[in-house]
Amino acid sequence: MSSTPPTVEASPQGRKPVISRDDIIAAALKLLGPNRGISTLSLREVAREAGIAPNSIYRHFRDLDELAVALIDLAGDSLRQIIVEARQRATAEHGVVQGCADAFMERLRADDRLLNILLREGKVGSTAFKDAVERQLNFFEEELKLDLMYLATVKNTGLYDPGLTAKAITRLVFTMGGTALDIPKDKHDELSKQIVQMVRMIIAGTQALAAFKTKSGL
Amino acid sequence: MSSTPPTVEASPQGRKPVISRDDIIAAALKLLGPNRGISTLSLREVAREAGIAPNSIYRHFRDLDELAVALIDLAGDSLRQIIVEARQRATAEHGVVQGCADAFMERLRADDRLLNILLREGKVGSTAFKDAVERQLNFFEEELKLDLMYLATVKNTGLYDPGLTAKAITRLVFTMGGTALDIPKDKHDELSKQIVQMVRMIIAGTQALAAFKTKSGL
Repeated sequence: MSSTPPTVEASPQGRKPVISRDDIIAAALKLLGPNRGISTLSLREVAREAGIAPNSIYRHFRDLDELAVALIDLAGDSLRQIIVEARQRATAEHGVVQGCADAFMERLRADDRLLNILLREGKVGSTAFKDAVERQLNFFEEELKLDLMYLATVKNTGLYDPGLTAKAITRLVFTMGGTALDIPKDKHDELSKQIVQMVRMIIAGTQALAAFKTKSGL
Repeated sequence: MSSTPPTVEASPQGRKPVISRDDIIAAALKLLGPNRGISTLSLREVAREAGIAPNSIYRHFRDLDELAVALIDLAGDSLRQIIVEARQRATAEHGVVQGCADAFMERLRADDRLLNILLREGKVGSTAFKDAVERQLNFFEEELKLDLMYLATVKNTGLYDPGLTAKAITRLVFTMGGTALDIPKDKHDELSKQIVQMVRMIIAGTQALAAFKTKSGL
C-alpha cells in the first residue's frame, strides 16, 4: 500500500477515463462477501474490478484503510435508515422490538452488502478501521439508549443502567445478524424470532433488575 | 493455495530439518494479532515464520483452511479449560457468572492468543472455517444450557427457553470479549463488570419471562 498519490494518471485503452468515489466503493462491495473480508482486499484489485488504472484509485483513497473506513461509515448510514423505518413502523415498546427486527431482517434478506460489512467486520483490522466500527456501534447505542429511556418513562417501567442495556442489545443484535448470510434464507424467520426473543429477554431483565434495585433500596 | 502436497522436500541450510504440527501452529499464532486475521495469512508466510521450506508445511496442512480450522479447534479446547476453572471456582448462580467472567478476563489479560482468535474471527472466511467456529460456539451453548437448567432447578427459578438463553449469553460474551484486546489493560476491569452485568440482565430476563409465561398460562 502506497500513501503517496501519483500526480500523473495513465489512461490505457478500455479503461474508463473518469471514475467516481461511488464507482470504487461499488467495485469493493462486489469483491466482498461472506467468504471475503475487507482486510484481504488490495487497492490494486479494487481498481481492476472498477476498470481503472491502479494509480487512479489514489485520487480517491490514500490506502486500503481509508477505503475500509469509508465503507463502514456508509454501512452505518445504511443501518440508520433501517432504524428510521423501524421507528416509523411502531411506537409501543413491544412494537419497536418487532419493528426493528422486521426492518433489519428485510434488509438482510435483500442482501444489503453494506449492512453485511458492518455486521461481519470489525474485530480484525487496523486501529482506524476498528475505531470506525466502534464509532458506528456507539451511535446506535446512544440512540437506542434514548429510546429505551423514553419508553421506560411512558410505560412507567424500570430501566437498569440504560447505557449498558442499549449496549447489550446492540452488540447481541449485531453479532446474531452477522450470522444471517451464513444460513439458508428459509431459516431467516427463525433467526429473526430468536433475535426478537433475545432482545425481549434483555428488556425484561433490565426491568427486573431495576425493580430489584428499587425494592432493596440500592 | 495449492491442494497438492509436494512429494520431495527441499532442505536448504539454516532451516530446521524436522518441524512439528505444534511448531507450525505456534508460528501462525505469532503472526496473528488484533490487526491481523487468519484470512490474511498465507501458508508460505507461516512456513517462513516457522523457519521451514514452504513445501514442508503441506505435510501437516493441506491448505490455509485446514490450518485455520485447527486453530479454531485448539482455541475451543483452550476456552473449555476456562469453563472448567470457572466451575471449580463457584457453585451458586451468582458465583458462576462472576467466576466465569473472572477466569475469562484473566485469560484475556494473559494475552491468550488462541482465545483471541476464537473471539475475533468467524464472521468472514471459508465455509469450513465458519462451521468450525459455529461448532465451538454450539459446544459452549450446550454446556451452558445444562448449567442453567441445573441452577434453575436447584434455585427453583424459572428459565424461559434454556437454549435461547444460553445462546444469548454465549454470543454476547464472545462479542464483548472480542473487544478486550482493543482497549487499554486498565479498562479490563470495567469491561469485565459490563460483561457480568449483561449476563445478569439476561438471567433476570429469562426468569422474568418464565414467570410471566407461568402466570399468563401460556
